[in-house]
Amino acid sequence: MIIDCHGHYTTAPPGIHVYRAFQLAFMNKPNRTQIKISDDEIQTSLENGQLKLQMERGTDMMLFSPRASHMGHHVGDEVISRQWTEVNNDLIKRVCGIFPDRFIGVCQLPQSPGVSPKNCVEELERCITELDFVGCNLNPDPSGGWWTDPPLGDEWWYPLYEKMVELDVPAMIHGSSTCNPAFHTTGSHYMNIDNTGIMQLLESRVFQDFPTLRIIMPHGGGVIPYQIARYRALSIMNKWEPFEEFMRRFYFDTAVYSPEAMELLIKIVGVDRLIFASEMLGGVTTIDPNTGRWFDDNKPLLDEITWLSEEDRQKIFEDNVKAAYPRLGPVMEKQMKAAKG
Amino acid sequence: MIIDCHGHYTTAPPGIHVYRAFQLAFMNKPNRTQIKISDDEIQTSLENGQLKLQMERGTDMMLFSPRASHMGHHVGDEVISRQWTEVNNDLIKRVCGIFPDRFIGVCQLPQSPGVSPKNCVEELERCITELDFVGCNLNPDPSGGWWTDPPLGDEWWYPLYEKMVELDVPAMIHGSSTCNPAFHTTGSHYMNIDNTGIMQLLESRVFQDFPTLRIIMPHGGGVIPYQIARYRALSIMNKWEPFEEFMRRFYFDTAVYSPEAMELLIKIVGVDRLIFASEMLGGVTTIDPNTGRWFDDNKPLLDEITWLSEEDRQKIFEDNVKAAYPRLGPVMEKQMKAAKG
Repeated sequence: MIIDCHGHYTTAPPGIHVYRAFQLAFMNKPNRTQIKISDDEIQTSLENGQLKLQMERGTDMMLFSPRASHMGHHVGDEVISRQWTEVNNDLIKRVCGIFPDRFIGVCQLPQSPGVSPKNCVEELERCITELDFVGCNLNPDPSGGWWTDPPLGDEWWYPLYEKMVELDVPAMIHGSSTCNPAFHTTGSHYMNIDNTGIMQLLESRVFQDFPTLRIIMPHGGGVIPYQIARYRALSIMNKWEPFEEFMRRFYFDTAVYSPEAMELLIKIVGVDRLIFASEMLGGVTTIDPNTGRWFDDNKPLLDEITWLSEEDRQKIFEDNVKAAYPRLGPVMEKQMKAAKG
Repeated sequence: MIIDCHGHYTTAPPGIHVYRAFQLAFMNKPNRTQIKISDDEIQTSLENGQLKLQMERGTDMMLFSPRASHMGHHVGDEVISRQWTEVNNDLIKRVCGIFPDRFIGVCQLPQSPGVSPKNCVEELERCITELDFVGCNLNPDPSGGWWTDPPLGDEWWYPLYEKMVELDVPAMIHGSSTCNPAFHTTGSHYMNIDNTGIMQLLESRVFQDFPTLRIIMPHGGGVIPYQIARYRALSIMNKWEPFEEFMRRFYFDTAVYSPEAMELLIKIVGVDRLIFASEMLGGVTTIDPNTGRWFDDNKPLLDEITWLSEEDRQKIFEDNVKAAYPRLGPVMEKQMKAAKG
């Protein structure tokens, strides 16, 4: 079985944008209106998008979360963020209901700059226990590029970590769009978030306080595998946990798109901590003229690495994903049963 | 000849810190006092530091600039930054006077958040024409982690680019320390700066407006070689210049510290755009227990790559450095003559 752990609903029907436009037009008096998207529209959006590509590319299941760049935690306030988050998570739930054998939910959190992550606990619990989601995306910079919130190592974040541990669900470190002209959302902001997030945790005692906390680094770990020696040296100089050991506290996804990068990622991170991800449809939705394939059609990069054993592939494509998301196995079973029924 | 293009005076004698402490203690009435550092102190600081390591490691010459993390453009105001910059550049000049066959100057700029880069033109000109320096370090985020200044693609920066082109000197994109708790200076802030700087230029028309502008990317290009496909895809999607071509507008230094990273860097960037750098003594001044060598003793990583020809090595260690810094050849000749005399 091939599970892609990193997909966003970037193809959601226009009704979601209509909702958002009205929500923001009447931001001074937030009210909860119904979103107008039919099941047919959802079906079509996926049959022409992620589902079609799943079939073409031979992947079986996708962990599916709301469009990351549209989470927009920096827009409006805590109430706006909460309503918008609920609407998006509910939409993901409908996707999983329509294609239960193809998509499993991962939730957005109602973060807001300067607001305690405590405010995310209720929505996380709803998504996991009521909607059968298996994880969440966590944005270390809800300000969208101004970096005004405490680092991930601060106790500020502990109420959320406590709930994650209690529910046994991982968070993928994932930014949203930026409102700071210094950055480009997918080109620099996302990379900076990966990089900054892991450094914030490296400097902290989070894994001492939460030894079973599960964190997933997207985009092949951003800069980490390439700059590994810098982090190893820093850890020695600062008497932190050796970086090789620290790195094993995370899972890294495989959302990189060149053969050299894929090879480096596997060599540095190791098969045991890697989980397959294409992040489709995401930041690289175009054809690579060098290969004639879509950039985010990256399973062939793994297929072409001859020194990976069948056992290695089984880990990356399925076993590690189930280990990173402990609720995935049972939820998948339940959804598969629903699909057959 | 082996030229290391990226060294900072991190071992400067205590007198420099005394100066800074007094400067900041009387920040309300900035005055220019004399710095108390003897030639002997300078000599000792280098004979026990960078010069000793140059000899041990078999490098001949170093492009030498003030300690990057102490540039502190975010501290005080424009006057504080200017005085501090002049003092540091003058100190580098003294180093080059004492060891003219070993060090060539690269200057710090008197940047200050919210202040036009026009204010850097005079000091750049002084360093190049009076002090015989060959380049400058340019900080895209003088706020030190709050990212409040316009991106490098903005005309805000054009007066500085004009002067760089006129003087035919390159800038290395290089941050200073951060005052934002979200970041770690060498672990995330520097990496983010590399990444963000190149994206800012990619989105801009800077190289159309200044076709002969020379920019050097430190730290092996930050995240670029590893995430190359992301940037190639973004360039196609946005109809920007193909990233392979855009990349050739830069020189990349070799300040990476693992064999896998060095190999990836050479493969992706290509021998023609690479210039040797160890960044010693910098962010990774400790021994790698895997090799028994200092992390920043990275020349062996190049020596060990068997598929590099002698011609390739000649380019990386000398020819490309001279091409990236057009004033280097003549200044070196002049300083060598002084050394012999």
